[in-house]
Amino acid sequence: MEPIRVAVLGSTGSIGRQTLDVIRQLPGVFRAVGLTAGSNADALADQVSLVKPTFAYSEKTSDRLRDAMSETGTRWLSPTEIATVSGIDVVMVGTAGAAGLIPTISAISAGRPVALANKEVLVMAGHLVRRALAGRDLLRPVDSEHSAIWQCLWGEDGHEIRRILLTASGGAFRDLDSAALHDVTSEQALNHPTWNMGRKITVDSATLMNKGMETIEAMWLFDVPMEKVEVVMHRESIVHSLVEFGDGSVKAQLGLPDMRLPIQCALAFPDRIAQAPADRLDLPALGTLNFGRPDIGRFPCLRLARQAGDRGGTYPAVMAAADEVAVDRFLREEIRFIDIASVVEKVMDKHDSEADPELDAVLAADGWARRFAATVRVGAAV
Amino acid sequence: MEPIRVAVLGSTGSIGRQTLDVIRQLPGVFRAVGLTAGSNADALADQVSLVKPTFAYSEKTSDRLRDAMSETGTRWLSPTEIATVSGIDVVMVGTAGAAGLIPTISAISAGRPVALANKEVLVMAGHLVRRALAGRDLLRPVDSEHSAIWQCLWGEDGHEIRRILLTASGGAFRDLDSAALHDVTSEQALNHPTWNMGRKITVDSATLMNKGMETIEAMWLFDVPMEKVEVVMHRESIVHSLVEFGDGSVKAQLGLPDMRLPIQCALAFPDRIAQAPADRLDLPALGTLNFGRPDIGRFPCLRLARQAGDRGGTYPAVMAAADEVAVDRFLREEIRFIDIASVVEKVMDKHDSEADPELDAVLAADGWARRFAATVRVGAAV
Repeated sequence: MEPIRVAVLGSTGSIGRQTLDVIRQLPGVFRAVGLTAGSNADALADQVSLVKPTFAYSEKTSDRLRDAMSETGTRWLSPTEIATVSGIDVVMVGTAGAAGLIPTISAISAGRPVALANKEVLVMAGHLVRRALAGRDLLRPVDSEHSAIWQCLWGEDGHEIRRILLTASGGAFRDLDSAALHDVTSEQALNHPTWNMGRKITVDSATLMNKGMETIEAMWLFDVPMEKVEVVMHRESIVHSLVEFGDGSVKAQLGLPDMRLPIQCALAFPDRIAQAPADRLDLPALGTLNFGRPDIGRFPCLRLARQAGDRGGTYPAVMAAADEVAVDRFLREEIRFIDIASVVEKVMDKHDSEADPELDAVLAADGWARRFAATVRVGAAV
Repeated sequence: MEPIRVAVLGSTGSIGRQTLDVIRQLPGVFRAVGLTAGSNADALADQVSLVKPTFAYSEKTSDRLRDAMSETGTRWLSPTEIATVSGIDVVMVGTAGAAGLIPTISAISAGRPVALANKEVLVMAGHLVRRALAGRDLLRPVDSEHSAIWQCLWGEDGHEIRRILLTASGGAFRDLDSAALHDVTSEQALNHPTWNMGRKITVDSATLMNKGMETIEAMWLFDVPMEKVEVVMHRESIVHSLVEFGDGSVKAQLGLPDMRLPIQCALAFPDRIAQAPADRLDLPALGTLNFGRPDIGRFPCLRLARQAGDRGGTYPAVMAAADEVAVDRFLREEIRFIDIASVVEKVMDKHDSEADPELDAVLAADGWARRFAATVRVGAAV
């Protein structure tokens, strides 16, 4: 069988590097034929030398990258062109932020499967992605929670989804009370209990904003209303999520916290590769799995995200943009941890959404929210 | 849509009555067109009056049954005839013991789907059932554990099953040590912690023989070797079982302990009825799920069943027959709880199996084992 030809957008990021790991470990199964990076041209140069893709792209370039591309005969092609060029079987969108939006919609419009790891694409423009999909099954989630839901839905076509139970580890501050949350540092926030991820998403896990965004993504991925998506606290991050069907039967997908499994799953679909990427789950050795309800009082970002998802329009884009800026301000020690939610709330309150916005309106709202979030004053500055 | 026409073999037993419950609660979806009973003719008479099936049968009969059948115009037809007569969509085999064997194989040979709740059918004659199936998907498990595995395998055609994790509540004596097991009474053995079932199966849960038999059933149902079926202790009986695929992904099916869900699932396949039979699973309210390894030292029946499954031939039939007699002797206080395993082991040790036995050889081995198990002396008689 021919290898599955993969384009990796955002190949120097956390998801991108793990995707290349998976591809490297299964050389007969996958081949990376396109790589794109943002500012990290030298890291991309190393990947180009190693992987020898057909196409590559970087927002910034460097001598090393130019040399690597010329030595390997790699052609320069933009992310959107790579997403749609012939000879590619699946596009891994591992970029962060709005950068994944246009390539994702372009790939889908061209009928090409997309393995989607970029959260903002569906949070900002889920309605546009669904419109581009036009009922086709081209979207394969990569997030462990959404991959779990997706796997639970295989073989369940036409069956009513009564509830989606999105599990949440609870992040770095799950055991702190409200008072203690006033004094936490960025260093503490970056210490995730179960997953090793990028800085932004690790802070989003600590505020539960990440889970709020995943709730919005789940709506668009699985075509269910917000009230059917419940968040369940599950500190061990073993049950990656669950689906309850109309007859009361509940299915779950479990595994060790390792992004390579959902990545492999999304790239190989509809096959499963009979090679596990890591240690096996040993339930008896784990012994206990815990479940609980989220505490919206301590983690208002979850409430804000669900509000944004309910309101729709440009609210989710504005919420996500405000959060990105607020997290950045927190990491630069300009605001406190608890101020992240205040920034997001103030920006959302100030926003007037239009219904069913086109891409330019979404991007305009994103830009406005970023500018406003950067200067809005909250709490007592540190 | 026309209702699904169901024949219920063993309709006065525990599974049969719950099946009629499910059918009664979903009158537009299911219709009971055939009922059969063993010795309980009067109970069958009541069901016939209520359900007005087309066909009925009882091993023993009674005036009430004759009256009920004549009033409702119900025709007398044997279980094997009901299993194959035209106008039936699915046969629920809810009988106990060898009684389900010939109807099951007849139904399958006739290309008719079978919802199989009878454990002995696959334990005694799994190889004959698989031969009758000839690769067709006609067998729908009803046991909650096997239903869970089956549901986890929907949409997974062609994917490698690396392991099946069969969960076990541990039965009435899960928290007793070996010494304490010497003195337990039949009354204690009949007090199952999570499931409300018949007497024989409740004792089999306490010895873990039930889980051993389920291991053998899983081999035949899902066409995997014994070493791929692991037993995992799970005291809450919420995770009904799990499947690990070749890529390391694990799927589980969960629900409250309520047989009506797997029954409904087996009858409605490939649909799911968008009506839950009972209370919904509330994971956060449950809080904790526990998992552990089985203690073969305390529960030798699990080892014996796995041995029988490994050896194949008529060993599983002999093991099951010896167990049935031993449990009966225990319930009549003729032997102690710990002697159940001794009876089974002695009978198995004495047995010479033939390879790939036909049905008559299986039934002969069953008969021999019953006779021997009834008289074999074990331990210190009570």
